[in-house]
Amino acid sequence: MAQYQVRFMPENKIIEVEQGTSLLKAASKAGIYIKSGCGGKGTCGACKVTVVSGNVETVGTGNLNPDQIAHGVRLGCQTFVQGNLTVEVPPESRLQEHQVLMGDVHKGILQESANDLLIKYGLQPLASKIRVQLSEPTLTDNASDWARLSVELKRTLPYEKNIEIPLSVLRDLPEILRQSNWDVSLTLTDMEDKYTIIRIEPGNDLPPRGLAIDIGTTTVVVYLVNLETGAIEDKQGTYNKQAKFGDDVISRIVYAVETPESLQEIQQAVIDTINELTDKLLARQNLTQDDLCTAVVAGNTTMTQLFLGINPRYLRLEPYIPTVSLTPSVAAREVGLHILPEALVHCYPSVASYVGGDIVSGALITDMANNEEITLFIDIGTNGEIVLGNQDWLVSCACSAGPCFEGGGITFGMRAMPGAIERVNIDPVTLDVNIAVVGRIPPVGICGSGLVDCLSKIREAGIIDRAGNFQLEHVSHSARLRQTQDDKEFVLAWAHQAGGEKDVVITENDVKNLIRAKGAIYAGIRSLLQMVAVDIDMIDRIAIAGGFGNYLNVHDSVQIGLLPDLPPEKYEFIGNSSVKGACLALLSQKAWHEAADLGRKITYVELSIGTTFMDEFVSALFLPHTDLSLFPTVEG
Amino acid sequence: MAQYQVRFMPENKIIEVEQGTSLLKAASKAGIYIKSGCGGKGTCGACKVTVVSGNVETVGTGNLNPDQIAHGVRLGCQTFVQGNLTVEVPPESRLQEHQVLMGDVHKGILQESANDLLIKYGLQPLASKIRVQLSEPTLTDNASDWARLSVELKRTLPYEKNIEIPLSVLRDLPEILRQSNWDVSLTLTDMEDKYTIIRIEPGNDLPPRGLAIDIGTTTVVVYLVNLETGAIEDKQGTYNKQAKFGDDVISRIVYAVETPESLQEIQQAVIDTINELTDKLLARQNLTQDDLCTAVVAGNTTMTQLFLGINPRYLRLEPYIPTVSLTPSVAAREVGLHILPEALVHCYPSVASYVGGDIVSGALITDMANNEEITLFIDIGTNGEIVLGNQDWLVSCACSAGPCFEGGGITFGMRAMPGAIERVNIDPVTLDVNIAVVGRIPPVGICGSGLVDCLSKIREAGIIDRAGNFQLEHVSHSARLRQTQDDKEFVLAWAHQAGGEKDVVITENDVKNLIRAKGAIYAGIRSLLQMVAVDIDMIDRIAIAGGFGNYLNVHDSVQIGLLPDLPPEKYEFIGNSSVKGACLALLSQKAWHEAADLGRKITYVELSIGTTFMDEFVSALFLPHTDLSLFPTVEG
Repeated sequence: MAQYQVRFMPENKIIEVEQGTSLLKAASKAGIYIKSGCGGKGTCGACKVTVVSGNVETVGTGNLNPDQIAHGVRLGCQTFVQGNLTVEVPPESRLQEHQVLMGDVHKGILQESANDLLIKYGLQPLASKIRVQLSEPTLTDNASDWARLSVELKRTLPYEKNIEIPLSVLRDLPEILRQSNWDVSLTLTDMEDKYTIIRIEPGNDLPPRGLAIDIGTTTVVVYLVNLETGAIEDKQGTYNKQAKFGDDVISRIVYAVETPESLQEIQQAVIDTINELTDKLLARQNLTQDDLCTAVVAGNTTMTQLFLGINPRYLRLEPYIPTVSLTPSVAAREVGLHILPEALVHCYPSVASYVGGDIVSGALITDMANNEEITLFIDIGTNGEIVLGNQDWLVSCACSAGPCFEGGGITFGMRAMPGAIERVNIDPVTLDVNIAVVGRIPPVGICGSGLVDCLSKIREAGIIDRAGNFQLEHVSHSARLRQTQDDKEFVLAWAHQAGGEKDVVITENDVKNLIRAKGAIYAGIRSLLQMVAVDIDMIDRIAIAGGFGNYLNVHDSVQIGLLPDLPPEKYEFIGNSSVKGACLALLSQKAWHEAADLGRKITYVELSIGTTFMDEFVSALFLPHTDLSLFPTVEG
Repeated sequence: MAQYQVRFMPENKIIEVEQGTSLLKAASKAGIYIKSGCGGKGTCGACKVTVVSGNVETVGTGNLNPDQIAHGVRLGCQTFVQGNLTVEVPPESRLQEHQVLMGDVHKGILQESANDLLIKYGLQPLASKIRVQLSEPTLTDNASDWARLSVELKRTLPYEKNIEIPLSVLRDLPEILRQSNWDVSLTLTDMEDKYTIIRIEPGNDLPPRGLAIDIGTTTVVVYLVNLETGAIEDKQGTYNKQAKFGDDVISRIVYAVETPESLQEIQQAVIDTINELTDKLLARQNLTQDDLCTAVVAGNTTMTQLFLGINPRYLRLEPYIPTVSLTPSVAAREVGLHILPEALVHCYPSVASYVGGDIVSGALITDMANNEEITLFIDIGTNGEIVLGNQDWLVSCACSAGPCFEGGGITFGMRAMPGAIERVNIDPVTLDVNIAVVGRIPPVGICGSGLVDCLSKIREAGIIDRAGNFQLEHVSHSARLRQTQDDKEFVLAWAHQAGGEKDVVITENDVKNLIRAKGAIYAGIRSLLQMVAVDIDMIDRIAIAGGFGNYLNVHDSVQIGLLPDLPPEKYEFIGNSSVKGACLALLSQKAWHEAADLGRKITYVELSIGTTFMDEFVSALFLPHTDLSLFPTVEG
């Protein structure tokens, strides 16, 4: 097969690829990550690039217009190298560094309560270090090295458990014992039934470290944790490299099940993501891979199965069965993480195919399973995952909200990265708009929290009615509100403000999509409440997790009927509770055991059974709801 | 580095090697195994080859004579490729297939008692198979695949233990469950504290199999065992391919510690040996690697460490400390055996650096640890390993007998392969010799059992005195007894009988070597007896193990003072007790646990401490002994 050179601009980076390689893959090979919402199916139009020169084969043009095509714009996934090329990748097609939610908390008490939880469960990490001084063998005291060491360990270690040593570590034993004059430090995993020696080094007093890893469909966050002090020493977050195979779990699954190689490829993408973050942390903290002696991973069920290389095929085929809920702990070498090869990697258990380890981790952080008060835990993303309950019962469900809140399916939707409108205020009289933009730069789009704000404010200003219909006749005094060829729209920022060629708008179609998304979440909450016959008022506490939730305005969320109309003081924003739960488990065996219990305790409710959810969903397709009695504080 | 072609004759096999490769290594690369007694040090002279044509560099000629050198004869280990070559490898330099002791028993009862032991311990193999039928999941019965399976297993399996599943097997789970309509067969290892699922297949009723492996320094034997019936279905044995690195454990250790690569190479040699045997068994029995679901290995401490790739350096440096006595069980994939990758491989525990797992395995087969009567267990090879004791106490030692009994250091010494004299009778009047030869072909040398016979008979005929000195003056009437330039010798077979160019003889020097060897064994026995203050008469039973022991004549062995002068009915020959013990452990968890206990129970006595052994050794350098009261049945 012929090899061609592809030059990527503006980086001016040249790589060599085989004839027939897609531009999407070529860019990825060059280290340039292009958006791909549909996983390379040619339908989402996110991977636009411009072929400046050279020969390509184009198999599809998707939503490109003739003008764009004439100017060399192509879809990266539908265009294939047929000669030496120069390709320009515009900023809007690139995955960019953005605000990855690293666990900072805007409001609420859970940052502190995570520490409280650690105090409650006790600092007894999943791996630890111990230093021992052995006596030197003689002709008369001639026990084997391992017998000598294990006798001393049995004497020293706090619990009487079996002590195991893997072959790879055993092979290091004789030399290190003698090099260090029989004064050695051992790193061991400390599991329920046994200790396992995973590293032997000359005696030292350096603390062991572990990684808490949150694998989100969109972003991946890694905490570096000191297992001796419990301190979080450093953090790193970035995009999940699996994004090139599609934005949501469904497109990832579709890609993964194509061939055994594609499963491997998509697994490797997330491993690479974690490893890059790990390498950065290690370099910054002057540590080596071998200093990292355990990891806890929290992710949704699809992310977890892909991380482990388990085929996710049956997650999306009815009756939606995961291969495993309580995943076995695996050695780091089995998945290829850049940590000590024999270190155990523990994945948070999942409840069902669409209520995963990230939710169990979050639920652990809320401590809802140990309180009399009833907690509603919500993680809003493409799926809205909900857990409801207290110490006596716990139910959960997942409702597909669609990608609106993450910027998908909205004309100017985008993630919460620089240029995203995150707050909107509209003067009810003049309809003038006041916006806040991430990064304080000219706006290029609008992110989830901005959309919730916007929906609330255009309803309040009477621009739309309760069903989301634009009220052109009533508000004809503003140029911002206008009829286009196919749709109606409201201008949030004029092109000259936006520094681009186009006005940033929200359309009637966008509004309808948003109403369906918020309706799905609210219907999920209502379905769970009905299931356990609990009135909405009986909820004592609402914990909102996740990237989107973290920036959400409660008032506006209630106004549009996304969240229940309950007093603001009942709301808590717990940030990236997934990585926090991973941290807690890393530091406390008791917490980790409780996590396993929690996975079993939470009852999963399949919303596709019966008509409850569909009835609730239809009722929720209004602003805020068809039943206004559910929203007493929202004016009629 | 330049590459050259080496053609090996008479095979006419051509291979390419780098300039500077030794002919020994080149031959090995061509699949031609050349003897190497000294591990490539150029001292033993076993690796003679003839360079027919081409350029070589010769760094040493060892014991070659000028005539040989003139005719192109070289030592393979001292001669290096410097151009394209043709090399002839004569038959006497080749490792050949021979009588590998496969566990057949000449005499005694232990074949039966191994079965008795199995009945006593109970058939509960280290791995087993179970078939389960699961219910199909639905939207309302939506437990994960693994949860569904493990619930059913907990219901079905006889003991309440943790059930684990490695990631590699978990990955197979979803497809196989669905392909087989939820009717599956599981192979599981059944250890003290847990079950581990190591294979999942569509439901079937084929029995699981395991391998019992005896790794001898010289030969390797593999039994194929049906774990359901306990039947030994097939056997295979051959040379240990490590022979090319030296005959004895010391030369193997010397080679192994040279570089990390040489350790890997010598490990791979024994793995290859086992795999070749395994492949033959599988082909013959129409089975696949995955049908083999566990293995038990018995070998001396060096063989065990090399099998596991553990550096044996400290086995031969004072104070002679093994890295591990009770080795951890390892997954087959960790060592590369041709069996189910997740199958556990269990190595028999060792007692000390020179009392290894083969001896523990043999001691288990004697059942000596469960009897009131005192058993003396002896395995005679290059080392004589001895265990003495009963249910209350067990002591052991190793005494270096040297390679005589395996044919080394004896002018016409050879292993028990076709052409080896194994029985000798001498007419006391005419000194005529009557011999029995392995394979009933013309004799080319004399093996261990033949040497014992010979020593006894030439002493009986008065050819040597009690110190081993040849009595030329007394027996001048036979041409068989003669003075040579450097030595005195007795002709066992004339050249014309032997079909060769030379008479097959035993020399005075050979006799002295043999006396030292037998003296070392007897001194070891006496030292142990003294250690525990037990008289020789108190021994109730003597069990002789091993290849050499199996063909030994008790009468002659007592006559020369190799074995204690006890009634013949106290002697048992238990054959390859090492592989039998491996078999027993494979079939019975209880036996396997007892093996681990036995490794701990046997006290090791280091003979180099104190003067007891040396005093005993000096006293034993006579035929039969300086203290004739120890040998009442031997005429003075």
